[in-house]
Amino acid sequence: VVLVAHGSRAAAANQAHLDLAAALDARVGPTVVGAFMELAEPSIADAVARAAEAGATVVAVLPYFLHPGRHQRVDIPQLVADAAETRPGVEIRLLDPFGSDPAVLDLLAGQVARSLLPS
Amino acid sequence: VVLVAHGSRAAAANQAHLDLAAALDARVGPTVVGAFMELAEPSIADAVARAAEAGATVVAVLPYFLHPGRHQRVDIPQLVADAAETRPGVEIRLLDPFGSDPAVLDLLAGQVARSLLPS
Repeated sequence: VVLVAHGSRAAAANQAHLDLAAALDARVGPTVVGAFMELAEPSIADAVARAAEAGATVVAVLPYFLHPGRHQRVDIPQLVADAAETRPGVEIRLLDPFGSDPAVLDLLAGQVARSLLPS
Repeated sequence: VVLVAHGSRAAAANQAHLDLAAALDARVGPTVVGAFMELAEPSIADAVARAAEAGATVVAVLPYFLHPGRHQRVDIPQLVADAAETRPGVEIRLLDPFGSDPAVLDLLAGQVARSLLPS
């Protein structure tokens, strides 16, 4: 699983994303690695190449994005298609973006409820 | 509750954020409105002003951001402080950003698990 963030000029934000990918890797069965659409390394193509070299035959790309927009609709599908072309033996699945999960609303509702508790 | 997104040049992304705020409003007790850090309207200050005019005495600002960075650390606190200065009668609470919720990892784990199901 390649967990893709936008990528930032702030090293701390990129590191936080790699830390999140490591936490997810520790939590789920398949191997999870972090990657970045732009501005940071590894790229989607690098992450797919490394997965293939490690023997992966299926790679799921999970966009860690909240809002629908050009990145989700155009840029990431294009980067995934480019990566797929260079790795014809690997099945690459582009998953729905994180923010499209209806459970996001549950998290927000919980955050609002906690904000109302007396501090 | 003011749910703050970054703001986009893509009108559809901004509309998606306002739709999410409306869905959250329908779900929780307090009134929820969407706002934007930049690039779209309403601003945080506008949303706080409207809440105050509607009689709110406490406004919770919830940054709908995934990654820690300059926006979370500097820009949004500054915009919230500016809004607070113009509305001394209103208590403004800046909540932890959406992405800092440990439950984000649960959502991601569920998304990975579903991606492994035969389609």
